Amino acid sequence: MTSLINDFRDERNWRQFHNAKDLALSISLEASELLEVFQWRTSESAVSEHRNELLEELADVTIYCLQLASDLDANLGQEIVRKVIKNGEKYPVEKSRGVARDC
Amino acid sequence: MTSLINDFRDERNWRQFHNAKDLALSISLEASELLEVFQWRTSESAVSEHRNELLEELADVTIYCLQLASDLDANLGQEIVRKVIKNGEKYPVEKSRGVARDC
Amino acid sequence: MTSLINDFRDERNWRQFHNAKDLALSISLEASELLEVFQWRTSESAVSEHRNELLEELADVTIYCLQLASDLDANLGQEIVRKVIKNGEKYPVEKSRGVARDC
Amino acid sequence: MTSLINDFRDERNWRQFHNAKDLALSISLEASELLEVFQWRTSESAVSEHRNELLEELADVTIYCLQLASDLDANLGQEIVRKVIKNGEKYPVEKSRGVARDC
Repeated sequence: MTSLINDFRDERNWRQFHNAKDLALSISLEASELLEVFQWRTSESAVSEHRNELLEELADVTIYCLQLASDLDANLGQEIVRKVIKNGEKYPVEKSRGVARDC
Repeated sequence: MTSLINDFRDERNWRQFHNAKDLALSISLEASELLEVFQWRTSESAVSEHRNELLEELADVTIYCLQLASDLDANLGQEIVRKVIKNGEKYPVEKSRGVARDC
Repeated sequence: MTSLINDFRDERNWRQFHNAKDLALSISLEASELLEVFQWRTSESAVSEHRNELLEELADVTIYCLQLASDLDANLGQEIVRKVIKNGEKYPVEKSRGVARDC
Repeated sequence: MTSLINDFRDERNWRQFHNAKDLALSISLEASELLEVFQWRTSESAVSEHRNELLEELADVTIYCLQLASDLDANLGQEIVRKVIKNGEKYPVEKSRGVARDC
């Protein structure tokens, strides 16, 4: 996945613009575009009427995440595994089961 | 990756709270936590002094992305491939090469 | 209001850090803190149980808005009046009455 | 200012859509539009080349802040004064002078 995305930006010679701060800013902007699909709508109506749009915005967020991880010389999949383990220690099953604020 | 994350939330019985709108909101909030690492800092100093924190926040954003994709019965990897192809049509190499606003 | 806020930051000698990009980033981060009060909650329960917190976050967003406007040598009140007039032309009463997507 | 904005939305009969959660979400989305002006740009070039756009987005953020404050039966100006006083206690001049992380 990462090489697909890196090839894409290298073909366009875009990596020169991709400093980490603007990539993080871009992740936040794409997350807002995703959120915008829900503006003035219920969760249900956004999902049933705008599923494709949601999936496109979700892909946009993740593409920038993969680019930033790559620029930080990290493997995003590995970081996720690491974080899930850490979250498991922070929110042990017996204490966090069914607690909305932890999720 | 998705099954790891889904097992995590099912063990804690959290899926009941995870409507799509609040998941999208959570993606945006985690993206802000990532962005916060860069607040009042240059891109370079954030990367060199806070790399681990950046990677953790990046993982948090992506974990919620995987959860939302899963709840929409979609495969996030497949959506990314689809979006990269679509972006390739929107930003053809010959027109977008070296153009910052497109990246 | 602006002079109260400017005095506050000048006493602390903070204006040196306040470039426009980081102020805009700070507005977005404070808006996320406001939004976080609604995470995994209905609108009603957030308002009835966390009104003070909402008002504090709302003040934080606006304080940064006033600082950025001041740094751009603009009067925020005047900009709001100007924008309301412009919005009135974009969304004329007869066309936008009762249309959620315009609001 | 608040009455100007409330008249605007009441003429369009929009208040029915304005639950607090979607207003907070809208504040965050407008803050992102402001931030977008800085994407892939330095602070200086955004300010010198896009000042009007910045001021319009800044007005949009604040308009929603005034609407949410009004819906919470609060006076935003008063909340700002209250928050500045509280911030003054949290960040006393002698401790926070010249400290970027506090600003």
